[in-house]
Amino acid sequence: MTKLIECIPNFSDGRNQKVIDGLVEIAKNVKGVTLLDHSSDTSHNRSVFTLVGDEEGIQEVVFQLVKFASENIDMTKHQGEHPRMGATDVVPFVPIKDVTMEECIAISKKVAQRINEELQIPIFLYEDSATTPVRKNLAKIRKGQFEKMPEKLLEEEWQPDYGERKIHPTAGVTAVGARMPLVAFNVNLDTDNIEIANKIAKIVRGSSGGWKYCKGIGVMLEDRNIAQVSMNMVNFEKTPLYRVFETIRFEAKRYGVSVIGSEVIGLTPAKALIDCAEYYLQIEEFNYNKQVFENHLLN
Amino acid sequence: MTKLIECIPNFSDGRNQKVIDGLVEIAKNVKGVTLLDHSSDTSHNRSVFTLVGDEEGIQEVVFQLVKFASENIDMTKHQGEHPRMGATDVVPFVPIKDVTMEECIAISKKVAQRINEELQIPIFLYEDSATTPVRKNLAKIRKGQFEKMPEKLLEEEWQPDYGERKIHPTAGVTAVGARMPLVAFNVNLDTDNIEIANKIAKIVRGSSGGWKYCKGIGVMLEDRNIAQVSMNMVNFEKTPLYRVFETIRFEAKRYGVSVIGSEVIGLTPAKALIDCAEYYLQIEEFNYNKQVFENHLLN
Repeated sequence: MTKLIECIPNFSDGRNQKVIDGLVEIAKNVKGVTLLDHSSDTSHNRSVFTLVGDEEGIQEVVFQLVKFASENIDMTKHQGEHPRMGATDVVPFVPIKDVTMEECIAISKKVAQRINEELQIPIFLYEDSATTPVRKNLAKIRKGQFEKMPEKLLEEEWQPDYGERKIHPTAGVTAVGARMPLVAFNVNLDTDNIEIANKIAKIVRGSSGGWKYCKGIGVMLEDRNIAQVSMNMVNFEKTPLYRVFETIRFEAKRYGVSVIGSEVIGLTPAKALIDCAEYYLQIEEFNYNKQVFENHLLN
Repeated sequence: MTKLIECIPNFSDGRNQKVIDGLVEIAKNVKGVTLLDHSSDTSHNRSVFTLVGDEEGIQEVVFQLVKFASENIDMTKHQGEHPRMGATDVVPFVPIKDVTMEECIAISKKVAQRINEELQIPIFLYEDSATTPVRKNLAKIRKGQFEKMPEKLLEEEWQPDYGERKIHPTAGVTAVGARMPLVAFNVNLDTDNIEIANKIAKIVRGSSGGWKYCKGIGVMLEDRNIAQVSMNMVNFEKTPLYRVFETIRFEAKRYGVSVIGSEVIGLTPAKALIDCAEYYLQIEEFNYNKQVFENHLLN
């Protein structure tokens, strides 16, 4: 069985079609790699690529993309709404099939080292690859953004994991790491009171004492005039969707509010949903890898 | 995207290792086909192969297997507990990916015709490929088994769909057809009263007025001393698992009985379970093909 690893590199250009085309050209032409999706946002001035590949292919394609970005994106001229610190801003590796988190961490370190040695871009390891607790959090690494990175790297605690305390003059700094797949999961409430969604979000999210691998905020769906608990499930194995869903349901009751629906945004691993079916159907001793037909078809 | 078709041919030999090895050898060596599983049962004296392949490959491998079986299995000498009528007893084609039921029916007919023309085995089309309502049901086609087939084929209503009213002297008769994937789904009750399981099975199964694509009986799990509703879900898209599960739950309540668990036996398509997650999590507008990550990895 081939190990499958996903990688979702973010590049700081969403406007220059020649740069985007160049990245796509590379992404489509590395053996053992499939480009599943790419999208560019002009207001963010940022492009996100979704790649999946075997162990060798994914490392090679990421290096080639980062090299191309470092040669074609000039951060000294970059403007856009999304926080950013490098031509390649962030490179997360995600275990998909027959590969452990430990193996993905090892891959992230190998790629980080090669990027630094061959391209002289300083690297912070983040998420599960992080070398200090504060570096798990991308927002904390990126704080100050490209413009303040030269000073930040001189601060005691911000020695890069690879490279010296000096940004690449045009490509800045890149964060590389391994993380679990993320599921964007929103739960809709039959209330127009955003405060209720805010309170419930605070209850379910890990940062304020709730489920450890859930991030959440309350938002208003203006077109439907309903409040929503909008979440990122950052480890659906350790904090399953159904557990958060049922928590929202029983917390909403306190306000006489019901759950009227939910949304999964974008892609989800099949297992995040099948784990929920297992719970609700009370399936005993289900073996996901062996019993799901499609798992026998993946390479 | 490659069309993927599953085929689960059943051969009437589960004892002669040379025959089994010969079938495996063929199954592993046709381009575009993967042998997912095969199992042989000596008391049934029968072997079941699970293959998946593209449109061309699946047709070729099935023909080669049927040819080998017709040359190496002699039904005049066959004994075994399982009902059977041919060296290759039954050949179901199942749509898996990017292929419609109509296309699978067309494939089943092409293979049936080739088997008859080149091997002189008479064929009944069954399940979704059937040409008369009674032929949808394999048990009705097979009734009388190999030994009574010569007379049966002479009966008015049993003219084979391909071939003459005469069995192949050693290979008998084969049923070929297309059907939906089948999910074996059992629901456990906290009662030792099999009558309750029987009554509920009668309520949920299509044949006695319940959910059309559910077959079910009550069985006793002797080792746990509990009764079970044991089911085959023969079209999980039209009769989803959760609908039958919830029916069993509310019908059991009448007897003060609870559902204490369920089992999925063997393989299930991911969608059969993800459809249930969608229901219980109340997911709005989920696009299975696009939003499930793994669907982008299958060829």
